[in-house]
Amino acid sequence: MKQKKILLDENEMPTQWYNVMPDIPNGIDPPLDPETKQPMGPEKLAAVFPMGLLEQEMSDKSWIDIPEEVQEIYHIWRPTPLVRAYALEAALGTKAKIYYKNEGVSPSGSHKTNSSVAQAYYNKREGVKRLSTETGAGQWGSALAFATHKFGLECKVYMVRVSFDQKPYRKIMMNTFGADIVASPSPDTAFGRKILEDMPGTAGSLGIAISEALEDAATRDDTKYALGSVLNHVILHQSIIGLESKKQMAKIGAYPDVVIGCCGGGSNYAGMMTPFLTDKLEGKKIRFVGVEPASCPTLTRGVYAYDYGDVARQTPLLYMYTLGHDFIPPGIHAGGLRYHGMSPIVSALVREKLIEPISVHQLECFEAGRLFAQTEGIIPAPETCHAIRAAIIEATRDLNDPQTILFNFSGHGLLDLSSYEKYYAGELHNYDYPAEAIAAATKNLPKI
Amino acid sequence: MKQKKILLDENEMPTQWYNVMPDIPNGIDPPLDPETKQPMGPEKLAAVFPMGLLEQEMSDKSWIDIPEEVQEIYHIWRPTPLVRAYALEAALGTKAKIYYKNEGVSPSGSHKTNSSVAQAYYNKREGVKRLSTETGAGQWGSALAFATHKFGLECKVYMVRVSFDQKPYRKIMMNTFGADIVASPSPDTAFGRKILEDMPGTAGSLGIAISEALEDAATRDDTKYALGSVLNHVILHQSIIGLESKKQMAKIGAYPDVVIGCCGGGSNYAGMMTPFLTDKLEGKKIRFVGVEPASCPTLTRGVYAYDYGDVARQTPLLYMYTLGHDFIPPGIHAGGLRYHGMSPIVSALVREKLIEPISVHQLECFEAGRLFAQTEGIIPAPETCHAIRAAIIEATRDLNDPQTILFNFSGHGLLDLSSYEKYYAGELHNYDYPAEAIAAATKNLPKI
Repeated sequence: MKQKKILLDENEMPTQWYNVMPDIPNGIDPPLDPETKQPMGPEKLAAVFPMGLLEQEMSDKSWIDIPEEVQEIYHIWRPTPLVRAYALEAALGTKAKIYYKNEGVSPSGSHKTNSSVAQAYYNKREGVKRLSTETGAGQWGSALAFATHKFGLECKVYMVRVSFDQKPYRKIMMNTFGADIVASPSPDTAFGRKILEDMPGTAGSLGIAISEALEDAATRDDTKYALGSVLNHVILHQSIIGLESKKQMAKIGAYPDVVIGCCGGGSNYAGMMTPFLTDKLEGKKIRFVGVEPASCPTLTRGVYAYDYGDVARQTPLLYMYTLGHDFIPPGIHAGGLRYHGMSPIVSALVREKLIEPISVHQLECFEAGRLFAQTEGIIPAPETCHAIRAAIIEATRDLNDPQTILFNFSGHGLLDLSSYEKYYAGELHNYDYPAEAIAAATKNLPKI
Repeated sequence: MKQKKILLDENEMPTQWYNVMPDIPNGIDPPLDPETKQPMGPEKLAAVFPMGLLEQEMSDKSWIDIPEEVQEIYHIWRPTPLVRAYALEAALGTKAKIYYKNEGVSPSGSHKTNSSVAQAYYNKREGVKRLSTETGAGQWGSALAFATHKFGLECKVYMVRVSFDQKPYRKIMMNTFGADIVASPSPDTAFGRKILEDMPGTAGSLGIAISEALEDAATRDDTKYALGSVLNHVILHQSIIGLESKKQMAKIGAYPDVVIGCCGGGSNYAGMMTPFLTDKLEGKKIRFVGVEPASCPTLTRGVYAYDYGDVARQTPLLYMYTLGHDFIPPGIHAGGLRYHGMSPIVSALVREKLIEPISVHQLECFEAGRLFAQTEGIIPAPETCHAIRAAIIEATRDLNDPQTILFNFSGHGLLDLSSYEKYYAGELHNYDYPAEAIAAATKNLPKI
């Protein structure tokens, strides 16, 4: 009988993270201070991040040890399975071999826990008592709630009001892990109170929630801030996805022709593909395809420039693909992909034409997700449906091409089933952002 | 670093189910025809079940081959992990070694898929085109929806109205797998229409839903009926849980002192414990503890007698522990444990004092479930919380007793989070059934 799952034992889990920074051709540009527009050193960022993470953010070492305490918690769900999607292949009638790395088996149901555990560890080590963060769809908030509880830290999550109301199960999961959750805008911060006064009844936004979480961390001595994607240290932690995948494929003598992942802030995809990058730089034939929603086309239609990470313009300026910090994407249900910017690392790899970005529409993604559930038995998160859709495009372009496709199954969709319900009811639509709107949004970029 | 997960490769998965029937001391009494009160042969049952399953229901063979087609689908999620709960042990401060078998990794999130895949296979083999079933909490309906889709069968699920309204995500999961779901009582059957007329606005009950599903199967040539617990063939299919567990414990040189599981209809627990039974019969020191809710105390306070399997008195009479087919337990949230009867196999093992039944209260179960989530990273189904609570009782009776505890983690609770929310909000209460009420319910048993 054909083997579906390629498993690793706990003692086969990598014990170092891979840092892609030294291997990026032409490097990435440094973050700038939003006030002075000069390169920003760790001192100023130390108000909101612990030094252990800032060292990783700036590190030029290729390999960084995973602390034993982090490894031990990783072992709750890691190594994650690599799975050959035989049933999906059969349904497509393709000769392509499709593999997926199942990051949905984590406590919070996605790859986010790979970084939340590491971030909680380094904060704990430096005496931090409490972490603040924002969450959109709820994946990152859940992951940080789990991790902070493991290290005995308090956790405050500012959850975008619209998600807070639409995804009550995410909130209950965070409560289960002991976190304190509030709908954002909230009465708990000066910024939140101001917004509530100016815009009563607002649905909130990630930009507002980031501002609240940052204010929380900046105004309390016991608290630091945690971010779930975009930054270099987050991508470092996520590299375990690709490192394990490589080991698993080697175990069965396989190697991918193409590596696929969905891109919101960029961390799940970079975590999957960066460990394969040096092979490509050394001449190996391998393609990297990053998938984003057509309704938030940062990599395919954005500009490459310095921009703010948030709407309120409080964060450092990052050099990245961006639709402009004013850009508000339409309410598609893949909340994790609704970000105006993109990780500087992923942006630089797109600039170097090492990653091919593509965009796909919402309806074809849900259709792909349903087919995946029916064949492979796991209901994917709406974000993950984008990666599945791209894998299907690759596998069906030429049904006789026996190429090897690897994609990151970033998370399950059990807490997103209300989005599927809307899809089945025909309430969802595709959305193409008009060119003028993108031109208008990217006109307001900061002058450097 | 201590190994948490004991994994088996797919080629280590057992290829035969274990049938406990020939090993039960003094056997079990046969089902009776509800009209004649005489033992019921397969002919009459063949109207609603395929012969392949009826042969298993009556089989006296100890081992039955798992068809290759079933094994192949099992491989989607099986073998399931056996996990040493180090973090839970540490939180309890116990020297006991706690292991759990994680059946929550299946496509529907529970052990139910072990039987649904087998049932769909045997129906398909005999040319059945469509299956009807009922579901309470939704676990069984989801499992059958997945399995029927895999074999290209249609599936109709009658879902108890109160669950249909309270657990919308279960319904969406079943839709994802392509099943047709209707709230019961429904306008789709004569019995449903009658109930809707007599009791407009009723919340429904499992008894009504069973009657509708049976009517559906009896009145359509292309349709048979499927049951998710209680019967011998269901317990046969679930034996893979215990068989794998035994293999996994042997791999690390361990053997349980006590094997624990929650009991609703009895199938998850019997599936776990029966493969260990012959060891006990041969003199090995091992205890079996079956856990039920104090609010539906079938094994601990019921009577051992012939009774109907449903409220409408349509099913064969089964010899089992029962609270009376009229018994309606209070609305605790572990919907899967709210059954008035119990599998005849589990009942006979309790009669023989081979299984020790215990009952636990709802609030202590949710408390145990939350502790499990915080330590082991998986939110358990409310039913599974009962097994966890019993494991904690065993592990903390004497903190210095280094005994080995094994329990079946029957399912995750990601689609039951609204029950946790009620628990956190203090809206749940314990419930002890008064003696008079039990006496009254068990007074109406059929005269044989």
